[in-house]
Amino acid sequence: VFLRNYWYVAAWAEEVTHKPLARIFLGLPVMLYRTASGEAVALEDRCCHRNLPLSMGFIEGDDVRCGYHGLKFAPSGDCIEIPGQPQIPPDARVTRYRLLERWGLLWIWMGDPAKVDEALLPQWHYLAEPGWAVIKGNDAKPMPMECGWQLNNDNLLDLSHVAYVHAKTLGGHGTDSSPVTTERRERSVRMIRWMPNLDPIPLWTKYLGQMGKVDRWQITEAELPSHCLVDVGFAPAGTTTIDKGRESAPRMRVMLTATPETEKTSFLFYAQLRNWGVEDHEFTQRFARDSRSIFDEDVVVMEAQQRMADTVPDAPTIDIRSDAPHLAMRRLVEQALEEENAGA
Amino acid sequence: VFLRNYWYVAAWAEEVTHKPLARIFLGLPVMLYRTASGEAVALEDRCCHRNLPLSMGFIEGDDVRCGYHGLKFAPSGDCIEIPGQPQIPPDARVTRYRLLERWGLLWIWMGDPAKVDEALLPQWHYLAEPGWAVIKGNDAKPMPMECGWQLNNDNLLDLSHVAYVHAKTLGGHGTDSSPVTTERRERSVRMIRWMPNLDPIPLWTKYLGQMGKVDRWQITEAELPSHCLVDVGFAPAGTTTIDKGRESAPRMRVMLTATPETEKTSFLFYAQLRNWGVEDHEFTQRFARDSRSIFDEDVVVMEAQQRMADTVPDAPTIDIRSDAPHLAMRRLVEQALEEENAGA
Amino acid sequence: VFLRNYWYVAAWAEEVTHKPLARIFLGLPVMLYRTASGEAVALEDRCCHRNLPLSMGFIEGDDVRCGYHGLKFAPSGDCIEIPGQPQIPPDARVTRYRLLERWGLLWIWMGDPAKVDEALLPQWHYLAEPGWAVIKGNDAKPMPMECGWQLNNDNLLDLSHVAYVHAKTLGGHGTDSSPVTTERRERSVRMIRWMPNLDPIPLWTKYLGQMGKVDRWQITEAELPSHCLVDVGFAPAGTTTIDKGRESAPRMRVMLTATPETEKTSFLFYAQLRNWGVEDHEFTQRFARDSRSIFDEDVVVMEAQQRMADTVPDAPTIDIRSDAPHLAMRRLVEQALEEENAGA
Repeated sequence: VFLRNYWYVAAWAEEVTHKPLARIFLGLPVMLYRTASGEAVALEDRCCHRNLPLSMGFIEGDDVRCGYHGLKFAPSGDCIEIPGQPQIPPDARVTRYRLLERWGLLWIWMGDPAKVDEALLPQWHYLAEPGWAVIKGNDAKPMPMECGWQLNNDNLLDLSHVAYVHAKTLGGHGTDSSPVTTERRERSVRMIRWMPNLDPIPLWTKYLGQMGKVDRWQITEAELPSHCLVDVGFAPAGTTTIDKGRESAPRMRVMLTATPETEKTSFLFYAQLRNWGVEDHEFTQRFARDSRSIFDEDVVVMEAQQRMADTVPDAPTIDIRSDAPHLAMRRLVEQALEEENAGA
Repeated sequence: VFLRNYWYVAAWAEEVTHKPLARIFLGLPVMLYRTASGEAVALEDRCCHRNLPLSMGFIEGDDVRCGYHGLKFAPSGDCIEIPGQPQIPPDARVTRYRLLERWGLLWIWMGDPAKVDEALLPQWHYLAEPGWAVIKGNDAKPMPMECGWQLNNDNLLDLSHVAYVHAKTLGGHGTDSSPVTTERRERSVRMIRWMPNLDPIPLWTKYLGQMGKVDRWQITEAELPSHCLVDVGFAPAGTTTIDKGRESAPRMRVMLTATPETEKTSFLFYAQLRNWGVEDHEFTQRFARDSRSIFDEDVVVMEAQQRMADTVPDAPTIDIRSDAPHLAMRRLVEQALEEENAGA
Repeated sequence: VFLRNYWYVAAWAEEVTHKPLARIFLGLPVMLYRTASGEAVALEDRCCHRNLPLSMGFIEGDDVRCGYHGLKFAPSGDCIEIPGQPQIPPDARVTRYRLLERWGLLWIWMGDPAKVDEALLPQWHYLAEPGWAVIKGNDAKPMPMECGWQLNNDNLLDLSHVAYVHAKTLGGHGTDSSPVTTERRERSVRMIRWMPNLDPIPLWTKYLGQMGKVDRWQITEAELPSHCLVDVGFAPAGTTTIDKGRESAPRMRVMLTATPETEKTSFLFYAQLRNWGVEDHEFTQRFARDSRSIFDEDVVVMEAQQRMADTVPDAPTIDIRSDAPHLAMRRLVEQALEEENAGA
C-alpha cells in the first residue's frame, strides 16, 4: 500500500544526467534523465510496445529511443517515431511523471496528474538557505533499504532509540528518559523532547569547545508520506524555550525520507545541515565521513524489523509512552490512504 | 503452459556421454546419458522410490543405479533390481522419454508417447549437409536464459531489432524500415523482409571483398514450438528475387530454439551456418568468437522483458506493423495449446 | 507442520555463552544466552515492542536490553524496565522457552509449558557415560540443512543407504541385502538389521587389527520427533545375538537429530561414540576429521530430495521392503500430530 498523491524524492539533482537512470518507485519502473537544456524528465521505464526498459535504450537529443525495435519517445512520453511505420497509434505513449527540481533534489509525483500540488512539498527549504553547511547523505545517493518505508517514520519519531541504536556513535545516554510531546497537524506530526540541564553533545563540543550545562532538544517533524525533519541542538541551561531563542543556538537539521521502491524495499535519502563551523569545509568532510555509520545503524535496525515481520507476520506487539508520535503518524497515513481510496 | 507433443532440443550430441547429464525440461527433471553402444537415453531424473535424482547415482553398463538405496533401472525405465528384495513391483519404473539423435542434436519428446511423430521435427537438416560451415553456438552448450521460451519466437520473427539490439555488433542501420511479409503455414510462420539496393553487410565484405549495391534479405521461419531458422544474405542488386537465385548468393542460416526449463527459464540452443569461406576453419573460429556477443545481446533483452513482466504483470502493450509475424506465431501457439488441452 | 510438545536440541552446551546466540526453531525466533551464574536461557528473540531481535541488543548482568528503545527483559521473559516510563504494562513480556542442559546438549521445549515432560527426552545418556570416546559433530555446531526435518528419520531408519550414499567413505557393500526387522514402540521405532558371517568393517580393523568372519549389526532407534540413535558393531561370527553379548563387542553409537528451523530447513546435530580405542585421543581427532564427509554425504542427499519435492510436488513414489521402519515412524509422527491438534 502506497500513498500516491504525494511528492517523493526520486534522486539527488546531480544523480540525473543525460544518461538514463533506472529506478522503481511505488512498484513502478521509472527512468530519469535530462534533456539538452538540462531539464530533468521522468518517464515510465517500460516501452509500451514490448516491455523493454527504455533506460536500456538510447538518448537522442531530448528524446529516448527504445533499444529493442527503435520506438522513439519525446520527453512528453508520446511516441514520435516507429521505424517502418508512418502512422503512430494514439496509445503509443509512456507515462510521463511530473518532476520538480527543488533544493538540490528531484521530487516525483507518481499519482493522479490532476492532483499535482506543489504545496504538498515538505518544508525542506533549509537545504538551499545560507547559513547552513550541507552534507548530502551517502555522497548524494540514496541508501537502498530492504524494508518498508513506514519504518523510517517510526524510527525518527521516537528518538529514544538514539541512546541504544547509536550508543557507539552518538551516545546520548540519558536522553531517552525525558518525556515527549506530540503535536498533530493536518499533514504532519511533530515530536518534541526537551531535555533540561544536561551536558552538551560530546561530538559537538570537540569543535565548539567546552561549556557548562545546557538544555538540549530533539524535534522531529514527519510530513506525509515520509519526509522527516529532525532538529537537534542545545543552548546554555535556562536561556531558551522550545519557542524562543533556539535559532541562534548550535543545532543540526537532518532531513530523511524513505521513498518506497516496493512494499518491502525503499530508498533512504538524507541530508545533514548544521549552523556551526559552516565555512570549515575540511571539518564538514570529516563530519560526513564520521557520521555515515549512524545512518547505517538505523538501516540495520529497520531491515531486521522487516525480516522479523516476514518471519512471524502476525506477532502481537505492545505500545509504550514514547510511541505516541509515531502512532499518530501511522494514523495519519491510514487516513490519507482511506482518502485516496475513497477518491479512487 | 508448455506445448508437450513436440520435439525439443535436449542437448548437443557431444554433451551426452556415459556420465549422467541432469536438466529440467518443461518443469520435469530429465537425466541424459549414453549406453555402452552409444545410444542416448533420456530418463525421468527422479527415483520412483525416494525422489533422489538418478543423475546423482551410478551408471552400471547400460543401466542406472540410484545413489540412495541402490534401485537399478534399465534404459527402458523399468526397475530391474531392488537390493534385499526379490520381487519388483510393477509400478517400480521411471519415465523413459523418447529421444532422437538428428543432425548433431538430441531431440526429446516430453509428451504423449502415443503421439511421437518424427514429421514434427523442424527443417534443420542443413546442419548435416555439405556446403555449409557450421558453428555450434556457445561451444555446443545451451545458453541458460532467465525468461520464458516464447520471447525467443518474438525476438526472431521481428528482425527490426537488429538495428538496435545489435547496433554495436551487426549494425544493420536502415534495415528496419523495409516492410515485412508474413506467411502463415500449418505449423510455422515465415517472416520475409526484402531490402533492395543497400550496401552489403560490412562484416561479410571484410571477407568476401568489396562489391556494389546489393539486395538483402532477412527470412525467419519459426516452427512450433520454438524452432527458428533465420536466413540472411544478399546478391548484386536486381539479380535475385525472394523465390529465385538466392541459393548461390552469400548467405547464413542461423538456427535457434528455446527449450523451456520452467515457465520463466529456458535453454537457448543455436547454430550458425554459412555458405562462404566454408573451408577456412581459422576464419570460422574467429567468426564464432566475434559473433558470440550477438547472442548475449539477445539474451540480455529477453531477460529484461521477463523481469519487467514480473514487476508489472498486467501492464498494457501496443502492437505495431512489424509485429504481424510474431503475433501470428503467438496465435499458432495458442491454437496448438488449445488442441493439446482438448485432446487431454 | 511441527510437533510442538517435544524436546528439540537447540545447541551444544558450549555454543551458548554470555553473548546472545540467535536461531529459529519451528519457525519462531529464539535467543540463547547464559546468565552470570551460567544458567542457559532461551527467550523469544523478538522484542514485544517493535520487533527487533533481542539478540541484537545488550546483555546486562542476567538481563537483556533491546537495542532499539532500551526495553529490558529478565531471564523470565518479563519486561523489567521501559526507559522514560515508570509503569510496565502486564503484556510487556517475551516468551521464555523451557531449556534443559543434559549430556552436553541444550534441549528446548517450544510447545505448551504445561506439558513440559523430562521423560520425553531421548535415551541419549550414553553421551555422558564413561567408557565411550565422544566426537561432537561438526566441531560441536549444527549443520544447517536445506530440507525438512523428517528426511533425517527416513535416512537413518533405512541404513541400506550406507552401501550407496557412503560407498566411498563407509563402503558397506553387501550389507544392504540382509532383511530388516521393525519394532514399533510407543514413541519410537527400532530398525534392526543382523548381518551374519561378513568381513568386519575395514575402517575399524585398521585400528583393531585383523580378525575372521563376524556377525555385524545396524540398529537405529528413532524417537519422536527426530532423535535417532544408531548402533553399529560386530562380534566373532556365532558369538552374539541381537539380545546378548553385544555390549562388549566393538561398536559405535551415533546420535543424530534434525531440529526444524522452518518447514524446509533444519539444523542437524550429531555425535559419534565408540567403545574401542577410547583413550587414544589422537585417533579420535583423526577419526573425527575422516568421518566428517560421511555426514556431508547424507546432507547432500536429503537436500536433493527436498529440491525434487519442490520441483515436482505431487510426484508419486513407491515403497519397498526396507521402508517398513521409516514408514512406521512417519505414521508415528502423523499420530502425534493428530494428537497435538486434537488437544489444541
